[in-house]
Amino acid sequence: MPANPFQFDINHPTLLLDKQKCIRNIDRFVEKAKKNNVNLRPHFKTHQSHEVASWFKERGVTCCTVSSLKMAQYFSEDGWNDITVAFPLNYLEADLINSLASKIQLNLLISVCEVLPQLLKKLKNRVGIFIEIDSGYHRTGFDPQDISGVERVLSEIESSPLTEFRGFLSHAGHTYRCNSKSAVEEIHLEEVRVLNDLKNRYKARCPDLKLSVGDTPSASLVDDFSGVDELRAGNLVFYDLTQAKIGACSLDQIAIAIACPVVATYPERNEIIIYGGGVHFSKDFITTEGGAISYGAVVLLTNKGWELPPTAMFVKALSQEHGTVHSDKESIRNLKPGDLLGVLPVHSCLMADAMGSYLTLKGGRVSRLSES
Amino acid sequence: MPANPFQFDINHPTLLLDKQKCIRNIDRFVEKAKKNNVNLRPHFKTHQSHEVASWFKERGVTCCTVSSLKMAQYFSEDGWNDITVAFPLNYLEADLINSLASKIQLNLLISVCEVLPQLLKKLKNRVGIFIEIDSGYHRTGFDPQDISGVERVLSEIESSPLTEFRGFLSHAGHTYRCNSKSAVEEIHLEEVRVLNDLKNRYKARCPDLKLSVGDTPSASLVDDFSGVDELRAGNLVFYDLTQAKIGACSLDQIAIAIACPVVATYPERNEIIIYGGGVHFSKDFITTEGGAISYGAVVLLTNKGWELPPTAMFVKALSQEHGTVHSDKESIRNLKPGDLLGVLPVHSCLMADAMGSYLTLKGGRVSRLSES
Repeated sequence: MPANPFQFDINHPTLLLDKQKCIRNIDRFVEKAKKNNVNLRPHFKTHQSHEVASWFKERGVTCCTVSSLKMAQYFSEDGWNDITVAFPLNYLEADLINSLASKIQLNLLISVCEVLPQLLKKLKNRVGIFIEIDSGYHRTGFDPQDISGVERVLSEIESSPLTEFRGFLSHAGHTYRCNSKSAVEEIHLEEVRVLNDLKNRYKARCPDLKLSVGDTPSASLVDDFSGVDELRAGNLVFYDLTQAKIGACSLDQIAIAIACPVVATYPERNEIIIYGGGVHFSKDFITTEGGAISYGAVVLLTNKGWELPPTAMFVKALSQEHGTVHSDKESIRNLKPGDLLGVLPVHSCLMADAMGSYLTLKGGRVSRLSES
Repeated sequence: MPANPFQFDINHPTLLLDKQKCIRNIDRFVEKAKKNNVNLRPHFKTHQSHEVASWFKERGVTCCTVSSLKMAQYFSEDGWNDITVAFPLNYLEADLINSLASKIQLNLLISVCEVLPQLLKKLKNRVGIFIEIDSGYHRTGFDPQDISGVERVLSEIESSPLTEFRGFLSHAGHTYRCNSKSAVEEIHLEEVRVLNDLKNRYKARCPDLKLSVGDTPSASLVDDFSGVDELRAGNLVFYDLTQAKIGACSLDQIAIAIACPVVATYPERNEIIIYGGGVHFSKDFITTEGGAISYGAVVLLTNKGWELPPTAMFVKALSQEHGTVHSDKESIRNLKPGDLLGVLPVHSCLMADAMGSYLTLKGGRVSRLSES
């Protein structure tokens, strides 16, 4: 089992993409949006890949979300012409904003006062503007009670012929702290309430305003998206152990894993050393049911992809290139240096960003921004 | 103060390298090695840069350490012809080993039994072999009491005309858990004792064997390297907050920082949001004196580089692209979106790996492996 089951060589840490699982994750999301009659604007920061994006496009998705202007540029080069940068406006990048806005429908995010007037000094082409509302995550955005702040930005938008108000956007990142469907639903309902209060206040003045929400736990666990116009979730294209712990996915839905050579086994201390470290997995961790720190769950590679081992194994420590796997003695006995193990991501966005490109289970290379 | 003090534009997270501090760190290391009459084989995994490596070469350093064969290849392409890969042998990469060993003096590490015979089946060119000894860190290497394991590897080395025994190597990574010079010294003395016991046992059989040690806390805090032939430390080229906490460097010796645009301020909750997140800093953290989690210390950028702010600020949370800085209200009042702040690394190796290339304080680009 632990030897290479694939039709291609793997001799160093290699990011595998199970296209079938990924497509199923995309299909589920597309169908849910259709059923709820909401616009799908998936976040592409997770995969950052033209090819993965094309799988959305084949299913009728025509717009997307990114978290940097560099990503907006990358996707615009592959025909995406309606892109929201869901990150607080960084007006220092006005040149790139102007360049992109001359070619595509570019939507920017205003999360505080003071920044839009700075952009307007340099803006040459028309952009859409979302106002970010803090629905309880407390990272960025206007407090929903800060009506004077929202009014000020709205007036600034209306004062310029180059800015068009698109609506209110929020990211309920505090769903990541939940561990039940009902807790996620409660946060989502509060988000919908907060956003609709604003919509009701401004719908006469701005009849086309949309409400856009974003997190993967809500997108996965909430069934009814009444009161919302647009979903922006991104992580669900791959999912990961963090989402599985929340209950947003099953382990079987996780669509990427890193294949790692075993380089040493130390049965006397229940440890396996793999070639695969902090520069490959990134260093996000979760706490296991037993209270241990885990930087990734170990899976056995098969000719169909990967499967959970009979007894759980996890990455307990990371150096730059080394991973230390905790295992039972029986599993270690079945392993030797030169075998391969898979590691499921704690946080797929960061793992994929660290790795540069993907290999499908058939050995096809899927490139992404960081290696382009 | 917070506006850009440099003669070049910065509009997104940018890794700055203070060449002067870096050269001073290199000089200190070179002088210490000379004074102790030990060979310097600095670890280049921290900087992974031809140009930074050349600053060692200009000071007489002729050999180096890396943690992957890919890095060995990169440095061999710039004239480094004596390289130790201080990572347990991954014999799946035998083709690359053969290719490198045909051009340079390549030294490999044997950390467990079973792997050298696998390599010998495919080895075509002569390589040097270090046997890794676990002097107490318990990551990889032979238990110093495991004489039968060491003997077995030695016999395998002696049985092949393509392998030459170079000596015993250890990495006392447990010095990273220390917070005093005396604790680091104690670990180093134990490492020296363990390695010299082996040297005494085998010096008649292998008169040329060398003892190689590696960690940055020891290289920085120990004054007397009697009983050691070679130093391999790497992190000290840049240092970081982890080393400062151990006492291995001062904050003023840290030679890299990321310049980040401020994108939002929230004085009511003592927070600043910067453009700079997990994909830039990586996610290693330290605990501050006050018990808070810190992903980086904030510095003010000046035309001479950077300096500590009057009141400490630190990165308290990271998303993929956002950093949340904890600050006092007074400091926040002096900041606005569009200003720049610097962030010192918790772990410089991972930050530099995440960022791809450096800019010197004069705006010169210093490239590294990951972008080559």
